[in-house]
Amino acid sequence: MQGLAFGGDYNPEQWPLEVQEEDVRLMREAGVNLVSLGIFAWARMEPRDGVYAFEWLDEVVDRLHASGISVNLGTPTAAPPAWFFRKYPDAFPVTRDGTRIGFGGRETACSSHPGFLAATSRLVGRLAERYGDHPGVVMWHVHNEYGAPLGECYCPASVHAWRDWLRTRYASLDALNEAWGTTFWGQTYGEWAEIDAPRWSHTVVNPAQRLDYARFANHEHLAHYRLQRSLLAGTGKPVTTNFAGTVNCKSMDLWSWAPELDVIANDHYLVAEREDNHIQLAMSADLSRSLAGGGPWMIMEHSTGAVSWQDRGIAKRPGEMRRNSLAHVARGSDSVLFFQWRASRFGAEKFHSAMVPQAGTDSQLWRDVVALGADLRGLAGLRGARVDAPEVAIVWDWESYWALELEWRPSGDLSYLERVEAFYEALWREHVTVDFVHPSADISRYRVVVAPSSYLLADASAKNLQRYVETGGTLLVSYFSGIVDEHDTVHHGAYPGALRDVLGLSVEEFHPLRADQTVTLDRPARIWSERVRLHGAAAVRTFGDGPDAGHPAVTRHALGAGTAWYLATAPHPADLRALLRQVLDGAAVQRPHGLPETLELVRRGGHAFLINHADTPAQVPGITGQDLLTGAPFTGEVPAGGVAVISVGSSPCP
Amino acid sequence: MQGLAFGGDYNPEQWPLEVQEEDVRLMREAGVNLVSLGIFAWARMEPRDGVYAFEWLDEVVDRLHASGISVNLGTPTAAPPAWFFRKYPDAFPVTRDGTRIGFGGRETACSSHPGFLAATSRLVGRLAERYGDHPGVVMWHVHNEYGAPLGECYCPASVHAWRDWLRTRYASLDALNEAWGTTFWGQTYGEWAEIDAPRWSHTVVNPAQRLDYARFANHEHLAHYRLQRSLLAGTGKPVTTNFAGTVNCKSMDLWSWAPELDVIANDHYLVAEREDNHIQLAMSADLSRSLAGGGPWMIMEHSTGAVSWQDRGIAKRPGEMRRNSLAHVARGSDSVLFFQWRASRFGAEKFHSAMVPQAGTDSQLWRDVVALGADLRGLAGLRGARVDAPEVAIVWDWESYWALELEWRPSGDLSYLERVEAFYEALWREHVTVDFVHPSADISRYRVVVAPSSYLLADASAKNLQRYVETGGTLLVSYFSGIVDEHDTVHHGAYPGALRDVLGLSVEEFHPLRADQTVTLDRPARIWSERVRLHGAAAVRTFGDGPDAGHPAVTRHALGAGTAWYLATAPHPADLRALLRQVLDGAAVQRPHGLPETLELVRRGGHAFLINHADTPAQVPGITGQDLLTGAPFTGEVPAGGVAVISVGSSPCP
Amino acid sequence: MQGLAFGGDYNPEQWPLEVQEEDVRLMREAGVNLVSLGIFAWARMEPRDGVYAFEWLDEVVDRLHASGISVNLGTPTAAPPAWFFRKYPDAFPVTRDGTRIGFGGRETACSSHPGFLAATSRLVGRLAERYGDHPGVVMWHVHNEYGAPLGECYCPASVHAWRDWLRTRYASLDALNEAWGTTFWGQTYGEWAEIDAPRWSHTVVNPAQRLDYARFANHEHLAHYRLQRSLLAGTGKPVTTNFAGTVNCKSMDLWSWAPELDVIANDHYLVAEREDNHIQLAMSADLSRSLAGGGPWMIMEHSTGAVSWQDRGIAKRPGEMRRNSLAHVARGSDSVLFFQWRASRFGAEKFHSAMVPQAGTDSQLWRDVVALGADLRGLAGLRGARVDAPEVAIVWDWESYWALELEWRPSGDLSYLERVEAFYEALWREHVTVDFVHPSADISRYRVVVAPSSYLLADASAKNLQRYVETGGTLLVSYFSGIVDEHDTVHHGAYPGALRDVLGLSVEEFHPLRADQTVTLDRPARIWSERVRLHGAAAVRTFGDGPDAGHPAVTRHALGAGTAWYLATAPHPADLRALLRQVLDGAAVQRPHGLPETLELVRRGGHAFLINHADTPAQVPGITGQDLLTGAPFTGEVPAGGVAVISVGSSPCP
Repeated sequence: MQGLAFGGDYNPEQWPLEVQEEDVRLMREAGVNLVSLGIFAWARMEPRDGVYAFEWLDEVVDRLHASGISVNLGTPTAAPPAWFFRKYPDAFPVTRDGTRIGFGGRETACSSHPGFLAATSRLVGRLAERYGDHPGVVMWHVHNEYGAPLGECYCPASVHAWRDWLRTRYASLDALNEAWGTTFWGQTYGEWAEIDAPRWSHTVVNPAQRLDYARFANHEHLAHYRLQRSLLAGTGKPVTTNFAGTVNCKSMDLWSWAPELDVIANDHYLVAEREDNHIQLAMSADLSRSLAGGGPWMIMEHSTGAVSWQDRGIAKRPGEMRRNSLAHVARGSDSVLFFQWRASRFGAEKFHSAMVPQAGTDSQLWRDVVALGADLRGLAGLRGARVDAPEVAIVWDWESYWALELEWRPSGDLSYLERVEAFYEALWREHVTVDFVHPSADISRYRVVVAPSSYLLADASAKNLQRYVETGGTLLVSYFSGIVDEHDTVHHGAYPGALRDVLGLSVEEFHPLRADQTVTLDRPARIWSERVRLHGAAAVRTFGDGPDAGHPAVTRHALGAGTAWYLATAPHPADLRALLRQVLDGAAVQRPHGLPETLELVRRGGHAFLINHADTPAQVPGITGQDLLTGAPFTGEVPAGGVAVISVGSSPCP
Repeated sequence: MQGLAFGGDYNPEQWPLEVQEEDVRLMREAGVNLVSLGIFAWARMEPRDGVYAFEWLDEVVDRLHASGISVNLGTPTAAPPAWFFRKYPDAFPVTRDGTRIGFGGRETACSSHPGFLAATSRLVGRLAERYGDHPGVVMWHVHNEYGAPLGECYCPASVHAWRDWLRTRYASLDALNEAWGTTFWGQTYGEWAEIDAPRWSHTVVNPAQRLDYARFANHEHLAHYRLQRSLLAGTGKPVTTNFAGTVNCKSMDLWSWAPELDVIANDHYLVAEREDNHIQLAMSADLSRSLAGGGPWMIMEHSTGAVSWQDRGIAKRPGEMRRNSLAHVARGSDSVLFFQWRASRFGAEKFHSAMVPQAGTDSQLWRDVVALGADLRGLAGLRGARVDAPEVAIVWDWESYWALELEWRPSGDLSYLERVEAFYEALWREHVTVDFVHPSADISRYRVVVAPSSYLLADASAKNLQRYVETGGTLLVSYFSGIVDEHDTVHHGAYPGALRDVLGLSVEEFHPLRADQTVTLDRPARIWSERVRLHGAAAVRTFGDGPDAGHPAVTRHALGAGTAWYLATAPHPADLRALLRQVLDGAAVQRPHGLPETLELVRRGGHAFLINHADTPAQVPGITGQDLLTGAPFTGEVPAGGVAVISVGSSPCP
Repeated sequence: MQGLAFGGDYNPEQWPLEVQEEDVRLMREAGVNLVSLGIFAWARMEPRDGVYAFEWLDEVVDRLHASGISVNLGTPTAAPPAWFFRKYPDAFPVTRDGTRIGFGGRETACSSHPGFLAATSRLVGRLAERYGDHPGVVMWHVHNEYGAPLGECYCPASVHAWRDWLRTRYASLDALNEAWGTTFWGQTYGEWAEIDAPRWSHTVVNPAQRLDYARFANHEHLAHYRLQRSLLAGTGKPVTTNFAGTVNCKSMDLWSWAPELDVIANDHYLVAEREDNHIQLAMSADLSRSLAGGGPWMIMEHSTGAVSWQDRGIAKRPGEMRRNSLAHVARGSDSVLFFQWRASRFGAEKFHSAMVPQAGTDSQLWRDVVALGADLRGLAGLRGARVDAPEVAIVWDWESYWALELEWRPSGDLSYLERVEAFYEALWREHVTVDFVHPSADISRYRVVVAPSSYLLADASAKNLQRYVETGGTLLVSYFSGIVDEHDTVHHGAYPGALRDVLGLSVEEFHPLRADQTVTLDRPARIWSERVRLHGAAAVRTFGDGPDAGHPAVTRHALGAGTAWYLATAPHPADLRALLRQVLDGAAVQRPHGLPETLELVRRGGHAFLINHADTPAQVPGITGQDLLTGAPFTGEVPAGGVAVISVGSSPCP
């Protein structure tokens, strides 16, 4: 394959031959060069236990290959056939409150079930054998969206695997009892067999156990992926699985998955009712690129229009599909792939948009798809190019996300995603492209690192942040960070135990706000106030009122060669923006000036992507060069809703 | 029996003899001539398995008969006794998520359970034998409100019956796989035994399977009814069962029930907190009459005042019971029956109103009941009379209702009932009495047929509507109609596949609105917008703004001798009213003019019922005649909250 | 022990020895003299089935005793160990809808389970034996908060015990069928084995059965307590259990528990988001004192600051912990005990406040704890003193609470607690200290008795209220009182059957209001209106509008030597206050005048407690004497947020 990949999920098994033949013709018309095949086709591939039927698939792959369309071949393990569940009725997952799910959805088998593992091995081995050498198959698409909808399973097979996982993790029950703090509420275990999954109870149960169960669930799904990867690796073709939204799928720790994928692949769907959903798209793309180590990645699924599973299937506005697609490319994607090629006539997702809609090709949507294909051919040279290295990083840690949102936290208004998004949005509006980093990663290359609500922080991660500051970095931490270690145990001493020294302060008492209560910086702040005591840091800003009136709300601590900032509340977006400007300026972070905040600007491989999310034209002074999308020199104006991709070479920030 | 039936559900088993004797005295005082007996008395009739005790019932029936009060004798299968469930604990229904219900409510046995069917046969056979010849028993009341609260059951007996039902319906698995679209998400079945009920899953399951399961549940309850009917038919007395609200009980397809009943019987309860609930009452009555083929039917239960099962037991206002009762009669009921004769002192419904309230007979409510009895004696001559044949019909199809409200539709704001009610209300305020029709029925006699949100439309039904228009009919269709066939499969080609030709348009893309978003016709419209493309139809009205600004919102298509209108949004009631006037005028539908819109006017058997729902007197010019309720000539004014029933013979519309 | 008890729950098993030693040092610094030990330590005491380990506990008790700190020794039955549940997996409770709870919370064993009873006996016997003579152990703390979170259990062992309980209660099935009204919906039982728990059904089940099941659940927990008490009684030390909030724990009928406790012990936690939560605190304390027969009681747990289990862990304001603590003492507590001594570093409650917070002793909270210890030493002389006997009582009956809030009541807005709180608050603001009484108790000593929403009233209780009025008492009853008897059966005749005679009126029909509907007295009233008919009573006030416009809203009935008032709606607080003033004045109830309504005034043992809940100083004319907290004469002013305890001897009301 050359250039950017363009295409989508393709389910020929739903259609008669004549439609399949039309499909190929239309794919060529639109410039489609890659389709994902077979993702839900187990029942077609192995119609009865041990009876295989691949001829139909051979024909599809051959037909596509003959037309120059490559195949991303799916392993269909997200949808075991009906005969499988008749054979193994106990392979259906069980929820935390003990409900066993039924047949007919997706991810309906428990990743820990021995029968499921055996059936997976057998089928995937056959696929590797049959298609490993086919020149039309260019990559493997394992399973589908691990972790959604099936995160944790509470079936007996899971409990069995859980005890094994715990034995490996802790070696001794003493270590486990210590890690889980089982002296609380008298939960000490004397035998491994006494340990159950952290089932629903009428009050909350052990949070360390729940946190470990989230890790275990991630491990089991990853093990199921690795089993498949090991069977496919011999084909020499890249293996991946499509993440169920880097930002949106809370259940999987994608930092642990990334090293196991030959290419990072992400699915992204807009929260359609949000007017600013293009910002969350950018965040999802930046997180995908970060998982890819800054290199290229693939958007494996997004939508041409409405999705079927949200409260309201809001369609995309004119130009929105194009802006979304090019935003993914701008932020490092080497593909623009959709769910789905052609809308199903039946089944749960028939009202989901597609490249070929129910209305067929005499439709604006199809014309937009064809035009997008042309756009992408113009950008072919960007394949493999890296996004210009960001100077700012945001700490992102699924374990902290999980731990922060367990029950009985100091406030139900605490939300991991809400806080990260608040900081991301402010940076996006400042035209600052960011990386996401694990708190234990090498962050020395960033001028600024932001840690929003980093509740769980292991000692090593805390030391990493401290070293970063001491050697010249600028760290900005927000409230409820550095509170617990990897076992959800409070760090010793006053809050925030893991960050007291680097921040030069302690927190004497949390003062979460009442519903709808605010406190004042320049404008109303929400959710949180707390009593900060300074031990080296200086107060930059105090609370104007509320339970901590007159006490520090924003602090700065000079430490070694660097600076650590702290923010003790959830300020109004304008106040957060002002604070971030101060922090960025202090760290000499380069960024363009004079641009409308609704203009998205990202640089990749010597090109500036300019995406105008406003309904009015955007003036972009200081950027000149050829626009790859029009072939003409850039006029300095991006039309309302339009996109420009300007060859700027290595020119500095405008 | 002569005249209109007046009375209610009667539970003498809850009372000592002296109260039962007082009951008969009071019934005579009020003019009660029919009571429904024994509906929950299985435990009294068969106190132990196979041990019968009918003597108490003999005495009650005899006592009533001796006083000229007829009996509508219930078969008590909605409440099997405790001994039954000890014998068959697996007869308790199971919910979709696997919870088995407990003892003590209603409809607590699964209609597919063999033990329940056997016990039903045995007891009902005994009842037929013992009371079949009793002159005091004039009709049979089978079970109680099939479908509420028990619609679908997921127990093993149900699954067994389900597979049988599917074998009958589809004959082959190939046909079933085709109908259900099992190639979607790899659900193809290779053996009948692999098919389970569509249980709860962590994502949605196959919608065609769910739709069939709704049909199956309807079938099983109907089969249970038919079993009883077959046992009672030999007595020569009419057999019925009381519908759990023609409009309100979504779970039963009453079109399939109607032919099995000797007389249609409906229960209707106001949604008490709604100020306009008398309009929904009218709709329920019109649908009851439509199920009865236009002939008389029975209101089997309504209430004298508050019900016990709504969030708030709002009592009726002065005159409201009378207006409600006479509205049922106006729209074809030959009865005014209540749940219940006398308020229970214990049990779940003791705060439900009754003809004899807890306060006893020294109460306004009792005085109103006695007066109502007198009113009904004045209307005795109307028994058996037909309502004047309506010129307008509304399409009503439970299968479309079920399908439209499955998960993952284009908008969670889509509601079958909401749309039908919107059109019904506009017609009610225009003083237009309507019939309801199945889309496959003979509709040639109507001047106008309205099809609101007729999402599911089989080919034959679509052809029926087309033939109707071509031969001169006027059809008005609203959005999201004609989308899928009977298997919830999208009709071929652009939306609305089943109605493109008759409407002369296609829909390129749905644009469901955000929560609280509106678009503008003359006034704000809600829920829906879409991109209409004209293929023969003319735009009557375009959207003033929103995603389809400038594109058609209302269209008209001249086809053959008729006209087909289309409405692409949910307009403000005033705009809908204006559109309906235009459609009615175009079709020369007769209706009175100059009446207040709060005055209900219905013609039955040469009489005009005038029901004034306003707090001020209503002037009704142009109607003269005797008022059956006062015996005096009608003055041309209906008092605030009052009713008049005028002998108008066959005079034309005022 | 001498003086007031000061301390809290202590969990040394969570800490290393050096922290335990620091604990003792800090306890002495703060003046702690009592700690509750071992409440969740079963797994430490009996680490394996039948294997005991008490040495660690011996050391802790000895260390505390050596430092003059007494021990309130817990029996740890609220948290059986993991080995116990491996042995008896069926000891986990089952919810009403059939979900079995998992391990890791609290109250995780069914109180009816034979294995649990046996294990309880064995362990508690050992504790009695080992610590019964220890001079450092001064009392026994059985279990923890019976009834929260475990009220009713639906497991097989519970059903077995339930049938036994019913046999004892009813002797015959005829009596049970009669009491439960099983003729309704045909539920008559023919064998005891047919009776199940009142499980969840798809409609409501028998309310009398549900009411009895609530009684049964109370009985089973109480039996579990009594089993332990019988084992501990021989030690001669007082035995208690901490109530899970006298006001807040609906599931236990504490009137039945009180006689079984040597000292009443209550846990109280603020509803932190409510600004007026100090009034509910006062109510909880008054109810605790009432359970203690007017004598002293113990606050066993309250909090120094935020709790962990509410939506938001709102911290206490400056002075609030002190005001809360002294309010408990003012209303009869001989203790100020907290959950907890030292904040846990792990487990579900690590964000719950403590006497030693996460921030350690260099914190305002610790300094406040030390100061509070000093305050309490100043009040040592109050130990054992009685609160001045109130002249006003409020009827409180858990059985009525349970029955009122079962399903299908006349309005979902009916709330037992809401009504009682409304009356309590008005009295609190009038500076009237109240007792709570069971409706069957001797109430002859009160000038006024208030019965808010006393829905369930047995005949004997009704007679008791009538006798009270006839002999000179003043009774004030609010709507929906006296409706049913102890079986939830409506009293004969018009509402309110049990109170018609004493009130001199009947209620013809309930008119519950629509959501957000109001009717008018002087100001808007909510929730309820009804049609009152007078039979001896006089209308004091009529409804200004609504369904009962012009009919009585407030009535007064002179009966014998007394007066019975009735209030037929939920008035605006100001109108309720005005009515109460009229009733109090009519009954010559003494109360102070001229005080701000935010000043709490209570008299105990010759001292006036003045607690200023306002942010401004309060002037208190007419009270003089030494302030025990400052040692100085009282100046007549209580500072903003401050407290004064003035030696006033037996001087009259200011």
